[in-house]
Amino acid sequence: MTIKTESVSLEDARRVVAAGEAKADEIGSPSNIAVVDVGGNLVAHIRMDEAWIGSVDISINKAFTSRAFDITTADLAANAGPGEQFFGINASNNGRVMIFAGGVPLRHGGRIVGAVGVSGGSGEQDQTVAEAAATAF
Amino acid sequence: MTIKTESVSLEDARRVVAAGEAKADEIGSPSNIAVVDVGGNLVAHIRMDEAWIGSVDISINKAFTSRAFDITTADLAANAGPGEQFFGINASNNGRVMIFAGGVPLRHGGRIVGAVGVSGGSGEQDQTVAEAAATAF
Amino acid sequence: MTIKTESVSLEDARRVVAAGEAKADEIGSPSNIAVVDVGGNLVAHIRMDEAWIGSVDISINKAFTSRAFDITTADLAANAGPGEQFFGINASNNGRVMIFAGGVPLRHGGRIVGAVGVSGGSGEQDQTVAEAAATAF
Amino acid sequence: MTIKTESVSLEDARRVVAAGEAKADEIGSPSNIAVVDVGGNLVAHIRMDEAWIGSVDISINKAFTSRAFDITTADLAANAGPGEQFFGINASNNGRVMIFAGGVPLRHGGRIVGAVGVSGGSGEQDQTVAEAAATAF
Repeated sequence: MTIKTESVSLEDARRVVAAGEAKADEIGSPSNIAVVDVGGNLVAHIRMDEAWIGSVDISINKAFTSRAFDITTADLAANAGPGEQFFGINASNNGRVMIFAGGVPLRHGGRIVGAVGVSGGSGEQDQTVAEAAATAF
Repeated sequence: MTIKTESVSLEDARRVVAAGEAKADEIGSPSNIAVVDVGGNLVAHIRMDEAWIGSVDISINKAFTSRAFDITTADLAANAGPGEQFFGINASNNGRVMIFAGGVPLRHGGRIVGAVGVSGGSGEQDQTVAEAAATAF
Repeated sequence: MTIKTESVSLEDARRVVAAGEAKADEIGSPSNIAVVDVGGNLVAHIRMDEAWIGSVDISINKAFTSRAFDITTADLAANAGPGEQFFGINASNNGRVMIFAGGVPLRHGGRIVGAVGVSGGSGEQDQTVAEAAATAF
Repeated sequence: MTIKTESVSLEDARRVVAAGEAKADEIGSPSNIAVVDVGGNLVAHIRMDEAWIGSVDISINKAFTSRAFDITTADLAANAGPGEQFFGINASNNGRVMIFAGGVPLRHGGRIVGAVGVSGGSGEQDQTVAEAAATAF
Protein backbone atom coordinates (compact mmCIF):
# COMPACT_ATOMS: atom_id res chain seq x y z
CA MET A 1 0.00 0.00 0.00
CA THR A 2 3.01 2.23 0.24
CA ILE A 3 3.56 4.95 -2.32
CA LYS A 4 6.36 4.40 -4.80
CA THR A 5 8.32 7.55 -5.48
CA GLU A 6 11.64 8.76 -6.76
CA SER A 7 14.03 11.27 -5.33
CA VAL A 8 17.21 13.18 -6.10
CA SER A 9 20.55 11.44 -5.58
CA LEU A 10 23.72 13.33 -4.67
CA GLU A 11 24.98 12.63 -8.16
CA ASP A 12 21.83 14.22 -9.59
CA ALA A 13 22.19 17.18 -7.29
CA ARG A 14 25.80 17.76 -8.26
CA ARG A 15 24.90 17.73 -11.95
CA VAL A 16 22.16 20.29 -11.29
CA VAL A 17 24.47 22.47 -9.21
CA ALA A 18 27.21 22.33 -11.84
CA ALA A 19 24.85 23.44 -14.58
CA GLY A 20 23.64 26.32 -12.44
CA GLU A 21 27.19 27.30 -11.58
CA ALA A 22 28.18 27.36 -15.25
CA LYS A 23 25.24 29.62 -16.07
CA ALA A 24 25.97 31.87 -13.09
CA ASP A 25 29.55 32.24 -14.28
CA GLU A 26 28.36 32.96 -17.79
CA ILE A 27 26.04 35.78 -16.72
CA GLY A 28 28.37 37.06 -14.01
CA SER A 29 26.05 36.44 -11.07
CA PRO A 30 27.85 34.71 -8.17
CA SER A 31 25.16 32.54 -6.64
CA ASN A 32 24.13 30.25 -3.88
CA ILE A 33 22.66 27.09 -5.41
CA ALA A 34 20.77 24.48 -3.39
CA VAL A 35 19.03 21.23 -4.28
CA VAL A 36 16.38 19.47 -2.19
CA ASP A 37 14.92 15.99 -2.54
CA VAL A 38 11.34 14.77 -2.79
CA GLY A 39 10.86 15.38 0.93
CA GLY A 40 12.10 18.97 0.72
CA ASN A 41 15.34 18.08 2.52
CA LEU A 42 18.70 19.50 1.41
CA VAL A 43 20.92 17.30 -0.75
CA ALA A 44 23.61 19.78 -1.78
CA HIS A 45 24.46 23.47 -1.55
CA ILE A 46 27.24 25.68 -2.82
CA ARG A 47 28.03 29.34 -2.30
CA MET A 48 30.16 30.62 -5.14
CA ASP A 49 33.00 32.98 -4.24
CA GLU A 50 31.66 36.53 -3.77
CA ALA A 51 28.06 35.39 -3.48
CA TRP A 52 25.99 36.96 -0.69
CA ILE A 53 26.06 35.26 2.71
CA GLY A 54 22.41 36.22 3.24
CA SER A 55 21.56 34.12 0.25
CA VAL A 56 22.61 30.81 1.80
CA ASP A 57 19.29 30.58 3.61
CA ILE A 58 17.34 31.99 0.67
CA SER A 59 18.67 29.48 -1.84
CA ILE A 60 17.91 26.55 0.45
CA ASN A 61 14.43 27.86 1.17
CA LYS A 62 13.63 28.66 -2.45
CA ALA A 63 14.36 25.03 -3.21
CA PHE A 64 12.25 23.95 -0.23
CA THR A 65 9.37 26.20 -1.28
CA SER A 66 9.42 25.01 -4.85
CA ARG A 67 9.07 21.39 -3.77
CA ALA A 68 6.74 22.15 -0.88
CA PHE A 69 4.15 23.60 -3.25
CA ASP A 70 5.25 21.98 -6.55
CA ILE A 71 5.62 25.36 -8.23
CA THR A 72 8.31 27.80 -9.26
CA THR A 73 8.76 30.50 -6.67
CA ALA A 74 8.23 33.01 -9.49
CA ASP A 75 4.76 31.60 -10.10
CA LEU A 76 4.08 31.49 -6.38
CA ALA A 77 5.12 35.15 -6.20
CA ALA A 78 2.38 36.05 -8.65
CA ASN A 79 -0.14 34.58 -6.21
CA ALA A 80 1.37 35.96 -3.01
CA GLY A 81 1.13 39.71 -3.49
CA PRO A 82 -1.40 41.99 -1.78
CA GLY A 83 -4.91 41.06 -2.82
CA GLU A 84 -3.84 37.70 -4.26
CA GLN A 85 -5.07 34.31 -3.08
CA PHE A 86 -1.93 33.35 -1.17
CA PHE A 87 -1.00 36.74 0.30
CA GLY A 88 0.63 35.98 3.63
CA ILE A 89 1.82 32.48 2.74
CA ASN A 90 5.40 33.53 3.49
CA ALA A 91 4.57 33.66 7.20
CA SER A 92 3.90 29.92 7.16
CA ASN A 93 6.36 27.06 7.59
CA ASN A 94 8.40 29.05 10.09
CA GLY A 95 9.44 31.64 7.52
CA ARG A 96 10.82 29.12 5.05
CA VAL A 97 8.47 30.09 2.19
CA MET A 98 10.24 32.28 -0.35
CA ILE A 99 7.96 34.23 -2.68
CA PHE A 100 10.33 35.57 -5.28
CA ALA A 101 11.99 34.09 -8.34
CA GLY A 102 14.77 31.50 -8.25
CA GLY A 103 13.16 28.25 -7.11
CA VAL A 104 12.34 25.65 -9.78
CA PRO A 105 10.97 22.10 -9.43
CA LEU A 106 12.94 19.09 -10.65
CA ARG A 107 10.80 16.67 -12.66
CA HIS A 108 11.32 13.03 -13.55
CA GLY A 109 8.86 10.72 -15.25
CA GLY A 110 6.13 13.31 -15.10
CA ARG A 111 6.49 13.90 -11.36
CA ILE A 112 8.19 16.50 -9.22
CA VAL A 113 10.90 14.73 -7.21
CA GLY A 114 12.88 17.67 -5.86
CA ALA A 115 13.76 21.29 -6.56
CA VAL A 116 16.60 23.72 -7.05
CA GLY A 117 16.90 27.16 -5.46
CA VAL A 118 19.19 29.99 -6.52
CA SER A 119 19.96 33.27 -4.78
CA GLY A 120 22.65 35.82 -5.41
CA GLY A 121 21.53 38.17 -8.13
CA SER A 122 18.44 39.91 -9.38
CA GLY A 123 15.24 37.92 -9.60
CA GLU A 124 15.80 37.57 -13.31
CA GLN A 125 19.37 36.36 -12.86
CA ASP A 126 18.38 33.87 -10.16
CA GLN A 127 15.60 32.53 -12.36
CA THR A 128 17.95 32.17 -15.33
CA VAL A 129 20.46 30.24 -13.24
CA ALA A 130 17.79 28.05 -11.67
CA GLU A 131 16.26 27.14 -15.01
CA ALA A 132 19.66 26.23 -16.44
CA ALA A 133 20.29 24.11 -13.37
CA ALA A 134 16.95 22.34 -13.58
CA THR A 135 17.45 21.55 -17.24
CA ALA A 136 20.48 19.44 -16.33
CA PHE A 137 18.36 17.16 -14.16
CA MET B 1 -18.05 30.63 38.55
CA THR B 2 -15.94 28.75 36.08
CA ILE B 3 -16.77 29.00 32.42
CA LYS B 4 -18.65 26.14 30.89
CA THR B 5 -17.36 25.37 27.45
CA GLU B 6 -17.71 22.83 24.74
CA SER B 7 -15.08 21.56 22.41
CA VAL B 8 -14.41 19.24 19.51
CA SER B 9 -13.99 15.54 20.23
CA LEU B 10 -11.81 13.29 18.11
CA GLU B 11 -14.99 11.72 16.78
CA ASP B 12 -16.24 15.17 15.73
CA ALA B 13 -12.90 15.96 14.14
CA ARG B 14 -12.91 12.77 12.14
CA ARG B 15 -16.38 13.50 10.83
CA VAL B 16 -15.28 16.98 9.79
CA VAL B 17 -12.11 15.64 8.16
CA ALA B 18 -14.04 12.94 6.30
CA ALA B 19 -16.49 15.47 4.88
CA GLY B 20 -13.63 17.67 3.75
CA GLU B 21 -11.83 14.73 2.23
CA ALA B 22 -14.91 13.72 0.26
CA LYS B 23 -15.28 17.24 -1.12
CA ALA B 24 -11.56 17.45 -1.93
CA ASP B 25 -11.84 14.19 -3.85
CA GLU B 26 -14.93 15.46 -5.64
CA ILE B 27 -13.27 18.66 -6.84
CA GLY B 28 -9.89 17.02 -7.46
CA SER B 29 -7.91 19.05 -4.96
CA PRO B 30 -5.67 16.83 -2.78
CA SER B 31 -5.65 18.61 0.56
CA ASN B 32 -4.26 18.85 4.02
CA ILE B 33 -7.17 19.07 6.46
CA ALA B 34 -6.76 19.96 10.12
CA VAL B 35 -9.17 20.43 13.01
CA VAL B 36 -8.48 22.35 16.21
CA ASP B 37 -10.48 22.45 19.42
CA VAL B 38 -11.80 25.33 21.51
CA GLY B 39 -8.27 25.99 22.76
CA GLY B 40 -6.89 26.23 19.22
CA ASN B 41 -4.98 22.99 19.73
CA LEU B 42 -4.82 20.30 17.05
CA VAL B 43 -7.24 17.39 17.29
CA ALA B 44 -6.67 15.72 13.93
CA HIS B 45 -4.82 16.22 10.66
CA ILE B 46 -4.57 14.36 7.41
CA ARG B 47 -2.48 14.92 4.30
CA MET B 48 -4.16 13.29 1.32
CA ASP B 49 -1.87 11.49 -1.14
CA GLU B 50 -0.31 14.00 -3.55
CA ALA B 51 -1.15 17.00 -1.36
CA TRP B 52 1.60 19.58 -0.87
CA ILE B 53 4.02 19.03 2.00
CA GLY B 54 4.22 22.79 2.52
CA SER B 55 0.51 22.74 3.32
CA VAL B 56 0.81 20.63 6.46
CA ASP B 57 1.76 23.69 8.46
CA ILE B 58 -0.68 25.93 6.62
CA SER B 59 -3.73 23.73 7.22
CA ILE B 60 -2.98 23.46 10.93
CA ASN B 61 -2.42 27.18 11.22
CA LYS B 62 -5.48 28.15 9.20
CA ALA B 63 -7.50 26.16 11.72
CA PHE B 64 -5.61 27.80 14.60
CA THR B 65 -6.14 31.26 13.12
CA SER B 66 -9.83 30.73 12.54
CA ARG B 67 -10.41 29.78 16.17
CA ALA B 68 -7.86 32.27 17.50
CA PHE B 69 -9.87 35.17 16.09
CA ASP B 70 -13.27 33.47 15.66
CA ILE B 71 -13.38 34.30 11.98
CA THR B 72 -12.87 32.65 8.64
CA THR B 73 -9.37 33.23 7.34
CA ALA B 74 -10.99 34.57 4.15
CA ASP B 75 -12.70 37.29 6.19
CA LEU B 76 -9.50 37.96 8.11
CA ALA B 77 -7.71 38.34 4.78
CA ALA B 78 -10.02 41.19 3.87
CA ASN B 79 -8.83 43.01 6.98
CA ALA B 80 -5.15 42.13 6.70
CA GLY B 81 -4.11 43.71 3.42
CA PRO B 82 -2.12 46.94 3.04
CA GLY B 83 -4.06 49.84 4.49
CA GLU B 84 -6.49 47.62 6.38
CA GLN B 85 -7.00 47.55 10.13
CA PHE B 86 -5.14 44.30 10.78
CA PHE B 87 -2.32 44.69 8.27
CA GLY B 88 0.70 42.93 9.73
CA ILE B 89 -1.25 40.58 11.99
CA ASN B 90 0.46 37.62 10.34
CA ALA B 91 3.72 38.55 12.06
CA SER B 92 2.08 37.80 15.41
CA ASN B 93 1.78 34.47 17.19
CA ASN B 94 5.15 33.28 15.93
CA GLY B 95 4.01 33.23 12.32
CA ARG B 96 0.98 31.04 12.97
CA VAL B 97 -1.61 33.51 11.65
CA MET B 98 -2.73 32.62 8.14
CA ILE B 99 -4.47 35.39 6.22
CA PHE B 100 -5.83 33.60 3.20
CA ALA B 101 -8.89 31.46 2.57
CA GLY B 102 -9.36 27.93 3.92
CA GLY B 103 -9.91 28.32 7.67
CA VAL B 104 -13.49 28.11 8.95
CA PRO B 105 -14.86 28.13 12.53
CA LEU B 106 -16.81 25.21 13.92
CA ARG B 107 -19.98 26.33 15.74
CA HIS B 108 -22.17 24.58 18.28
CA GLY B 109 -25.07 26.03 20.25
CA GLY B 110 -24.33 29.49 18.94
CA ARG B 111 -20.70 29.42 19.95
CA ILE B 112 -17.43 28.78 18.18
CA VAL B 113 -15.87 25.68 19.69
CA GLY B 114 -13.12 24.89 17.22
CA ALA B 115 -12.13 25.32 13.59
CA VAL B 116 -11.09 23.50 10.44
CA GLY B 117 -8.23 24.49 8.15
CA VAL B 118 -7.63 23.31 4.60
CA SER B 119 -4.62 23.79 2.34
CA GLY B 120 -3.70 22.18 -0.94
CA GLY B 121 -5.42 24.00 -3.77
CA SER B 122 -6.38 27.49 -4.81
CA GLY B 123 -7.90 29.78 -2.24
CA GLU B 124 -11.30 29.02 -3.73
CA GLN B 125 -10.76 25.26 -3.60
CA ASP B 126 -9.50 25.36 -0.03
CA GLN B 127 -12.51 27.42 1.01
CA THR B 128 -14.90 25.02 -0.70
CA VAL B 129 -13.36 22.04 1.06
CA ALA B 130 -13.29 23.80 4.43
CA GLU B 131 -16.94 24.82 4.21
CA ALA B 132 -17.97 21.29 3.31
CA ALA B 133 -15.95 20.03 6.24
CA ALA B 134 -17.44 22.52 8.68
CA THR B 135 -20.97 21.66 7.59
CA ALA B 136 -20.44 18.12 8.84
CA PHE B 137 -19.80 19.34 12.36
CA MET C 1 20.04 8.27 -11.78
CA THR C 2 17.26 9.19 -9.42
CA ILE C 3 16.76 7.19 -6.26
CA LYS C 4 13.72 4.94 -6.12
CA THR C 5 12.05 4.99 -2.77
CA GLU C 6 8.75 4.25 -1.10
CA SER C 7 6.71 6.29 1.30
CA VAL C 8 3.68 6.14 3.56
CA SER C 9 0.23 6.66 2.03
CA LEU C 10 -2.66 8.18 3.97
CA GLU C 11 -4.26 4.75 4.01
CA ASP C 12 -1.09 3.32 5.57
CA ALA C 13 -0.99 6.12 8.11
CA ARG C 14 -4.60 5.58 9.13
CA ARG C 15 -3.99 1.87 9.68
CA VAL C 16 -0.99 2.70 11.85
CA VAL C 17 -2.91 5.33 13.81
CA ALA C 18 -5.86 2.98 14.34
CA ALA C 19 -3.62 0.25 15.74
CA GLY C 20 -1.98 2.75 18.07
CA GLU C 21 -5.34 4.07 19.18
CA ALA C 22 -6.61 0.57 19.98
CA LYS C 23 -3.56 -0.12 22.10
CA ALA C 24 -3.83 3.25 23.83
CA ASP C 25 -7.45 2.48 24.70
CA GLU C 26 -6.47 -0.96 25.95
CA ILE C 27 -3.81 0.35 28.33
CA GLY C 28 -5.79 3.45 29.29
CA SER C 29 -3.31 6.01 27.99
CA PRO C 30 -5.05 8.72 25.92
CA SER C 31 -2.46 9.61 23.29
CA ASN C 32 -1.43 11.84 20.46
CA ILE C 33 -0.39 9.67 17.53
CA ALA C 34 1.39 11.03 14.47
CA VAL C 35 2.76 9.46 11.29
CA VAL C 36 5.39 10.97 8.99
CA ASP C 37 6.47 9.89 5.53
CA VAL C 38 9.90 9.11 4.09
CA GLY C 39 10.73 12.83 4.01
CA GLY C 40 9.82 13.33 7.65
CA ASN C 41 6.66 15.25 6.71
CA LEU C 42 3.37 14.71 8.57
CA VAL C 43 0.80 12.42 6.96
CA ALA C 44 -1.72 12.09 9.79
CA HIS C 45 -2.20 13.02 13.43
CA ILE C 46 -4.86 12.41 16.05
CA ARG C 47 -5.28 13.58 19.61
CA MET C 48 -7.49 11.23 21.54
CA ASP C 49 -10.00 12.78 23.91
CA GLU C 50 -8.32 13.71 27.23
CA ALA C 51 -4.81 13.47 25.75
CA TRP C 52 -2.38 16.29 26.65
CA ILE C 53 -2.34 19.33 24.39
CA GLY C 54 1.40 19.67 24.95
CA SER C 55 1.81 16.30 23.34
CA VAL C 56 0.58 17.37 19.90
CA ASP C 57 3.99 18.79 19.10
CA ILE C 58 5.83 15.97 20.85
CA SER C 59 4.08 13.20 18.94
CA ILE C 60 4.74 14.89 15.60
CA ASN C 61 8.37 15.50 16.49
CA LYS C 62 8.96 12.01 17.84
CA ALA C 63 7.84 10.72 14.46
CA PHE C 64 10.06 13.25 12.72
CA THR C 65 13.05 12.34 14.88
CA SER C 66 12.62 8.63 14.36
CA ARG C 67 12.70 9.04 10.58
CA ALA C 68 15.31 11.80 10.65
CA PHE C 69 17.82 9.48 12.29
CA ASP C 70 16.33 6.08 11.37
CA ILE C 71 16.15 5.02 14.99
CA THR C 72 13.63 4.67 17.79
CA THR C 73 13.63 7.71 20.01
CA ALA C 74 14.17 5.32 22.93
CA ASP C 75 17.43 4.15 21.38
CA LEU C 76 18.38 7.73 20.58
CA ALA C 77 17.72 8.62 24.21
CA ALA C 78 20.34 6.11 25.30
CA ASN C 79 22.88 8.03 23.24
CA ALA C 80 21.76 11.53 24.14
CA GLY C 81 22.30 11.68 27.88
CA PRO C 82 25.16 13.51 29.65
CA GLY C 83 28.48 12.00 28.61
CA GLU C 84 27.00 10.12 25.67
CA GLN C 85 28.01 10.58 22.04
CA PHE C 86 24.94 12.58 21.00
CA PHE C 87 24.46 14.69 24.15
CA GLY C 88 23.02 17.97 22.94
CA ILE C 89 21.42 16.63 19.76
CA ASN C 90 18.04 17.88 20.94
CA ALA C 91 19.17 21.45 20.35
CA SER C 92 19.47 20.72 16.63
CA ASN C 93 16.80 20.89 13.94
CA ASN C 94 15.16 23.87 15.62
CA GLY C 95 14.18 21.89 18.68
CA ARG C 96 12.37 19.17 16.77
CA VAL C 97 14.58 16.32 18.02
CA MET C 98 12.83 14.34 20.77
CA ILE C 99 15.10 12.19 22.90
CA PHE C 100 12.67 10.08 24.87
CA ALA C 101 10.64 6.97 24.07
CA GLY C 102 7.64 6.90 21.74
CA GLY C 103 9.02 7.31 18.21
CA VAL C 104 9.39 4.19 16.08
CA PRO C 105 10.44 3.80 12.42
CA LEU C 106 8.11 2.28 9.83
CA ARG C 107 9.86 -0.29 7.64
CA HIS C 108 8.94 -1.75 4.27
CA GLY C 109 11.02 -4.02 2.09
CA GLY C 110 13.99 -3.69 4.41
CA ARG C 111 13.97 0.11 4.37
CA ILE C 112 12.69 2.81 6.66
CA VAL C 113 10.00 4.72 4.79
CA GLY C 114 8.40 6.75 7.59
CA ALA C 115 7.82 6.74 11.33
CA VAL C 116 5.18 6.93 14.03
CA GLY C 117 5.33 9.10 17.15
CA VAL C 118 3.24 8.76 20.29
CA SER C 119 2.92 11.08 23.26
CA GLY C 120 0.45 11.16 26.10
CA GLY C 121 1.55 8.78 28.80
CA SER C 122 4.70 7.55 30.47
CA GLY C 123 7.67 6.69 28.31
CA GLU C 124 6.80 3.05 28.66
CA GLN C 125 3.18 3.62 27.68
CA ASP C 126 4.13 5.75 24.69
CA GLN C 127 6.59 3.11 23.54
CA THR C 128 4.00 0.36 23.89
CA VAL C 129 1.47 2.31 21.82
CA ALA C 130 4.05 3.23 19.18
CA GLU C 131 5.22 -0.34 18.77
CA ALA C 132 1.65 -1.58 18.39
CA ALA C 133 1.06 1.15 15.82
CA ALA C 134 4.21 0.33 13.84
CA THR C 135 3.35 -3.36 13.77
CA ALA C 136 0.22 -2.54 11.76
CA PHE C 137 2.26 -0.99 8.99
CA MET D 1 43.87 49.51 10.15
CA THR D 2 41.36 47.05 8.90
CA ILE D 3 41.91 43.40 9.70
CA LYS D 4 43.37 41.25 7.00
CA THR D 5 41.74 37.89 6.91
CA GLU D 6 41.63 34.75 4.87
CA SER D 7 38.72 32.52 4.24
CA VAL D 8 37.62 29.34 2.55
CA SER D 9 36.93 29.44 -1.19
CA LEU D 10 34.40 27.20 -2.85
CA GLU D 11 37.29 25.32 -4.41
CA ASP D 12 38.77 24.76 -0.94
CA ALA D 13 35.42 23.65 0.39
CA ARG D 14 34.96 21.15 -2.39
CA ARG D 15 38.38 19.65 -1.73
CA VAL D 16 37.52 19.33 1.95
CA VAL D 17 34.12 17.80 1.18
CA ALA D 18 35.63 15.34 -1.29
CA ALA D 19 38.18 14.15 1.24
CA GLY D 20 35.47 13.68 3.82
CA GLU D 21 33.29 11.85 1.35
CA ALA D 22 36.11 9.45 0.47
CA LYS D 23 36.69 8.67 4.14
CA ALA D 24 32.97 8.26 4.76
CA ASP D 25 32.78 5.80 1.89
CA GLU D 26 35.82 3.96 3.20
CA ILE D 27 34.39 3.49 6.68
CA GLY D 28 30.83 2.91 5.46
CA SER D 29 29.25 5.90 7.16
CA PRO D 30 26.99 7.87 4.78
CA SER D 31 27.40 11.45 5.94
CA ASN D 32 26.31 15.02 5.68
CA ILE D 33 29.40 17.18 5.23
CA ALA D 34 29.36 20.96 5.50
CA VAL D 35 32.02 23.65 5.26
CA VAL D 36 31.77 27.18 6.63
CA ASP D 37 34.01 30.17 6.01
CA VAL D 38 35.76 32.56 8.37
CA GLY D 39 32.42 34.23 9.06
CA GLY D 40 30.79 30.94 10.03
CA ASN D 41 28.64 31.08 6.90
CA LEU D 42 27.99 28.00 4.76
CA VAL D 43 30.17 27.53 1.67
CA ALA D 44 29.18 23.99 0.66
CA HIS D 45 27.13 21.06 1.89
CA ILE D 46 26.45 17.55 0.66
CA ARG D 47 24.20 14.79 1.90
CA MET D 48 25.46 11.45 0.70
CA ASP D 49 22.85 8.94 -0.45
CA GLU D 50 21.33 7.15 2.56
CA ALA D 51 22.63 9.71 5.04
CA TRP D 52 20.17 10.88 7.71
CA ILE D 53 17.95 13.84 6.86
CA GLY D 54 18.15 15.01 10.47
CA SER D 55 21.88 15.44 10.00
CA VAL D 56 21.63 18.19 7.39
CA ASP D 57 21.13 20.76 10.11
CA ILE D 58 23.61 19.10 12.45
CA SER D 59 26.48 19.04 9.95
CA ILE D 60 26.01 22.71 9.08
CA ASN D 61 25.81 23.65 12.74
CA LYS D 62 28.78 21.55 13.79
CA ALA D 63 30.80 23.50 11.25
CA PHE D 64 29.31 26.78 12.50
CA THR D 65 30.05 25.86 16.12
CA SER D 66 33.61 24.85 15.40
CA ARG D 67 34.38 28.20 13.78
CA ALA D 68 32.19 30.17 16.19
CA PHE D 69 34.32 29.08 19.12
CA ASP D 70 37.52 28.05 17.28
CA ILE D 71 37.43 24.56 18.72
CA THR D 72 36.50 21.05 17.72
CA THR D 73 32.98 20.21 18.80
CA ALA D 74 34.45 17.16 20.54
CA ASP D 75 36.57 19.45 22.72
CA LEU D 76 33.62 21.75 23.28
CA ALA D 77 31.61 18.71 24.38
CA ALA D 78 34.11 18.08 27.15
CA ASN D 79 33.33 21.54 28.49
CA ALA D 80 29.58 21.48 27.98
CA GLY D 81 28.45 18.60 30.19
CA PRO D 82 26.73 18.96 33.56
CA GLY D 83 29.04 20.71 36.02
CA GLU D 84 31.40 21.93 33.30
CA GLN D 85 32.19 25.56 32.55
CA PHE D 86 30.09 25.85 29.40
CA PHE D 87 27.15 23.69 30.44
CA GLY D 88 24.08 25.14 28.69
CA ILE D 89 25.97 26.76 25.83
CA ASN D 90 23.87 24.80 23.35
CA ALA D 91 20.86 26.95 24.22
CA SER D 92 22.67 29.98 22.78
CA ASN D 93 22.79 31.12 19.17
CA ASN D 94 19.24 30.00 18.50
CA GLY D 95 20.10 26.35 18.98
CA ARG D 96 22.94 26.34 16.48
CA VAL D 97 25.63 25.23 18.93
CA MET D 98 26.40 21.51 18.60
CA ILE D 99 28.23 19.94 21.50
CA PHE D 100 29.18 16.55 20.16
CA ALA D 101 31.96 15.29 17.93
CA GLY D 102 32.21 15.99 14.20
CA GLY D 103 33.07 19.67 13.88
CA VAL D 104 36.71 20.56 13.17
CA PRO D 105 38.35 23.94 12.47
CA LEU D 106 40.13 24.62 9.19
CA ARG D 107 43.51 26.30 9.72
CA HIS D 108 45.73 28.27 7.38
CA GLY D 109 48.89 30.18 8.22
CA GLY D 110 48.39 29.55 11.90
CA ARG D 111 44.84 30.88 11.94
CA ILE D 112 41.41 29.34 11.89
CA VAL D 113 39.70 30.47 8.72
CA GLY D 114 36.68 28.16 8.58
CA ALA D 115 35.46 24.76 9.72
CA VAL D 116 34.01 21.47 8.57
CA GLY D 117 31.07 19.65 10.16
CA VAL D 118 30.11 16.02 9.68
CA SER D 119 27.00 14.17 10.79
CA GLY D 120 25.69 10.76 9.85
CA GLY D 121 27.33 8.14 11.99
CA SER D 122 28.52 7.60 15.54
CA GLY D 123 30.46 10.37 17.20
CA GLU D 124 33.65 8.46 16.46
CA GLN D 125 32.76 8.01 12.79
CA ASP D 126 31.80 11.64 12.36
CA GLN D 127 35.06 12.73 13.97
CA THR D 128 37.08 10.43 11.71
CA VAL D 129 35.39 11.80 8.60
CA ALA D 130 35.76 15.41 9.74
CA GLU D 131 39.46 15.01 10.51
CA ALA D 132 40.09 13.45 7.11
CA ALA D 133 38.19 16.29 5.51
CA ALA D 134 40.10 18.96 7.41
CA THR D 135 43.43 17.43 6.50
CA ALA D 136 42.68 18.10 2.83
CA PHE D 137 42.43 21.82 3.48
